[in-house]
Amino acid sequence: MKYVFVNDDFFEENKAFIRTSDLALQRGYGVFDFFKTRNNKPLFLEDYLDRFFNSANEMFITIPISRAQLKENIFKLIEKNNIPESGIRITATGGYSPDGYSPVQGNIIIQQQLLVQPSQEKFDAGLRIATHEYMRDLPSVKSINYIMGVWLQKQLREKQLDDVLYFKNNIITEFPRSNVFMVTGGTKLLTPGKNVLAGVTRKKIFAFAPGLLPTSIADISLNELKSADEVFMTSTTRRILPVVEIDGVKIGNGKPGKITGELYRIFVEAEEKEMRMY
Amino acid sequence: MKYVFVNDDFFEENKAFIRTSDLALQRGYGVFDFFKTRNNKPLFLEDYLDRFFNSANEMFITIPISRAQLKENIFKLIEKNNIPESGIRITATGGYSPDGYSPVQGNIIIQQQLLVQPSQEKFDAGLRIATHEYMRDLPSVKSINYIMGVWLQKQLREKQLDDVLYFKNNIITEFPRSNVFMVTGGTKLLTPGKNVLAGVTRKKIFAFAPGLLPTSIADISLNELKSADEVFMTSTTRRILPVVEIDGVKIGNGKPGKITGELYRIFVEAEEKEMRMY
Repeated sequence: MKYVFVNDDFFEENKAFIRTSDLALQRGYGVFDFFKTRNNKPLFLEDYLDRFFNSANEMFITIPISRAQLKENIFKLIEKNNIPESGIRITATGGYSPDGYSPVQGNIIIQQQLLVQPSQEKFDAGLRIATHEYMRDLPSVKSINYIMGVWLQKQLREKQLDDVLYFKNNIITEFPRSNVFMVTGGTKLLTPGKNVLAGVTRKKIFAFAPGLLPTSIADISLNELKSADEVFMTSTTRRILPVVEIDGVKIGNGKPGKITGELYRIFVEAEEKEMRMY
Repeated sequence: MKYVFVNDDFFEENKAFIRTSDLALQRGYGVFDFFKTRNNKPLFLEDYLDRFFNSANEMFITIPISRAQLKENIFKLIEKNNIPESGIRITATGGYSPDGYSPVQGNIIIQQQLLVQPSQEKFDAGLRIATHEYMRDLPSVKSINYIMGVWLQKQLREKQLDDVLYFKNNIITEFPRSNVFMVTGGTKLLTPGKNVLAGVTRKKIFAFAPGLLPTSIADISLNELKSADEVFMTSTTRRILPVVEIDGVKIGNGKPGKITGELYRIFVEAEEKEMRMY
């Protein structure tokens, strides 16, 4: 039986509840974050906690426990559940709001699930994606609102596509759950900086990539993206995955790019190093 | 003790729960509707149920009970709670999704709360509002996502304003929880038709107003709105309330308009008539 932490205690998964008056259920109001464990070790935990507390702060949600207490309960959950390769989600809801519209003290949920990382076959095949004009409500915040991302799934399935990239006024931003990068001119790595979530994997790429090629933030149009040498997405769940087709247009030669592969190798090494730090 | 209906039974309010794996908590994914009772009679119920089932359908949420069963449980809740003047909220969440991202069979919640309609003083004072560029994710759907509306509350409180009107590319759309109308040229009633929720009170105005003055749907710019003779909002909770100031600009003479008052009187009469139909 898997456990879920809610506010101040651990509950069996099917007995982990939130009351129906919570602002997350009433108004979709809440924030979360998601990190992974390998061999029961949470990777880059401090980066994710930074973002989680920042999201809550930007959305005026009070987190009723300290960062130290949150960490303590994350490690307790890891021990209790023993799912060595996992994803852990921490959520702060808008709380039990008396007027059903104003955020109050949040309810805290920590959930864990088995996480299978994409296979080498998945990497080699690359992703075929669509684009869609949309911007998340407060792009710098990791809110729980994924209405558009979830809603678009049906269309993607019907077209047998892997994901959808958002853009706004012709400038690309992010995937519903991932960031985007492009390699251009054979030697430059670019990623959007406006209206995007500051992904932790994205941040790591920014730390490692300059050793390999010049890396910068830029406004990238849909057309510029489609004529890139290489395009890839970064996310906690999927690490780095090449994008080989956008709106039916092949990227480069339609195969995963060399720099994408190199960055993937460097990123996996960084994960291994992080694991050894415990 | 107040009761809440969840899926197939009635629970005391503080024992009405949803499991933490629900897609509403995970991804803010759910739909709802909200109607009121007067003297324990639900007003314009069929209109609200039409919209509720339509919202669920548009968001691929399966409602596990029939319309007849839903109505039966609404009437049971009204009887059990006995809150004659109330608001009733029906919610269909995205459900307990195995992958945490795909909508499945929804969880159904029916909640009731005391509802105090705005006083005559509130009507006479009118509303002072701001404007904000934003569009809800799927505007024709009454989803649970109110992140922007809730988030803007703090700014409104600081500026001592009553509400915020959304616009998109300079064309006005709706309030977070209400529709907007304007009277122009002394004799024409206009309301936006694009990117708005089809409000039930708005629908009633469309039924009654043509007896009073020509009524139509139109694209209305921010400037046109600010130079209107009268502006008012319509909603289930607030019925009809005059807007007397927008972004610091006085509307008309800064007092509730004559046509607004007349429509209010006609609408309250329609509610009384609806009550007598039971």
